[in-house]
Amino acid sequence: MKPLILVTNDDGITSKGIRTLVETMQTIGDVVVVAPNSPQSGMGHAITIGEPLRLYETHIFDQVTEYECSGTPADCVKLAKNYVLQDRKPDLVVSGINHGSNSSISVLYSGTMSAAIEAAIEGIPAIGFSLNDFREDADFSHATELIRQITETALQNGIPTGVALNVNIPAKSDVPLRGVKICRQAKAKWQEKFDYRVDPHGRGYLWMAGDFVNFDTEKEDTDVWALENNYISVVPCQYDLTDYGTLNTLATWDL
Amino acid sequence: MKPLILVTNDDGITSKGIRTLVETMQTIGDVVVVAPNSPQSGMGHAITIGEPLRLYETHIFDQVTEYECSGTPADCVKLAKNYVLQDRKPDLVVSGINHGSNSSISVLYSGTMSAAIEAAIEGIPAIGFSLNDFREDADFSHATELIRQITETALQNGIPTGVALNVNIPAKSDVPLRGVKICRQAKAKWQEKFDYRVDPHGRGYLWMAGDFVNFDTEKEDTDVWALENNYISVVPCQYDLTDYGTLNTLATWDL
Repeated sequence: MKPLILVTNDDGITSKGIRTLVETMQTIGDVVVVAPNSPQSGMGHAITIGEPLRLYETHIFDQVTEYECSGTPADCVKLAKNYVLQDRKPDLVVSGINHGSNSSISVLYSGTMSAAIEAAIEGIPAIGFSLNDFREDADFSHATELIRQITETALQNGIPTGVALNVNIPAKSDVPLRGVKICRQAKAKWQEKFDYRVDPHGRGYLWMAGDFVNFDTEKEDTDVWALENNYISVVPCQYDLTDYGTLNTLATWDL
Repeated sequence: MKPLILVTNDDGITSKGIRTLVETMQTIGDVVVVAPNSPQSGMGHAITIGEPLRLYETHIFDQVTEYECSGTPADCVKLAKNYVLQDRKPDLVVSGINHGSNSSISVLYSGTMSAAIEAAIEGIPAIGFSLNDFREDADFSHATELIRQITETALQNGIPTGVALNVNIPAKSDVPLRGVKICRQAKAKWQEKFDYRVDPHGRGYLWMAGDFVNFDTEKEDTDVWALENNYISVVPCQYDLTDYGTLNTLATWDL
């Protein structure tokens, strides 16, 4: 029996990246799509609790059960598991292919990875795929066969329970990809700058823009190093934020 | 010199919880507020990248420099550090007091804690405070002195770099609080149910509701246990999602 694969993303159901992922997953299993009806980049692990959700069937793809949702990527996974599919638990959740990389700290801001992590919380094996090219018409052609291989390998080996894989793929270039590297999340941050402008009504507004600052430049075991050196990076992610190393320190505080 | 304390939250700048926190922090240091202009519960680590931000000075509090922002809690911290304050780095960021607990897995969905974690990413000591009472008129009176003590102790001892404290406080009851416990994040999830309704225009919509499912019921070292037993829970949180225990497993895969 073919595996049941739930596909979602954060760029929205009409993006090129999810179309590529749906077509790739159709070579592996039965595909169900529940994806946002609008771009949700940067939504992190947001969920919709103050207002209701809309969920409508769509007919964008060939031979796929598919729905667009007004909510966030994490909402899509919750809706898919508990409302659309109910007693049919997916064998795998894949999210993406994101237009833009989600390496390092970006995993926290990423709707793509939050959907995958939401699946991991639900005990479903999950992979988020991102391409290091944020253009709307990004070229995914060099990535599809590798995505298929990584997905097949993950299904065969079994992703450990509670883990979601964060897979980042270099942008297409003249140089062939050098392979796949298992990595840790690079220590880094975004250094924001704000661009103040005045709207036609005389009121100020601000655009947030940022530069990526890598604190891990000399280490070769990070996802950022892998991408910069034309490898696909795979980071296993989990969702227990406890800093276990600090528990003993805090225990000495007089609280 | 008094410490500079940045206050934010996710319930919005007009909520009772942030007013309580501002007043408590004014007994400790100089306070600057940058907080959302609307409720942002469940926004997780979302940031605003597809549209501009509005930031306006407000005059809600006494003797405080204060701004309301159209963005998310994480946006507020980025704006405060890089635009409002610029060369004056806060000594501490506090977020809350949230109306509702953010124990266990809720830390991922919490705007309150994402603001604190954003500060940790920026290298600023940070604490998120949440009360286990989601009512708009929740009673914070039993919590303020303890919040003051925890904050003073954290400032004296120094929160390790890259760590944000997730502090959850039991709701007010007839029983006095039993003290503070250093905890780990309980293993749990939300089990969602969706309530389908039809709007006056004949179109369907869904409300998401959930039951909390605790997989850690027999353990006494978790934040959920602490809250259930009338302790304040303190979980040190970090933001490297890498599952280090799985790196070696994945290295055996034929990728």
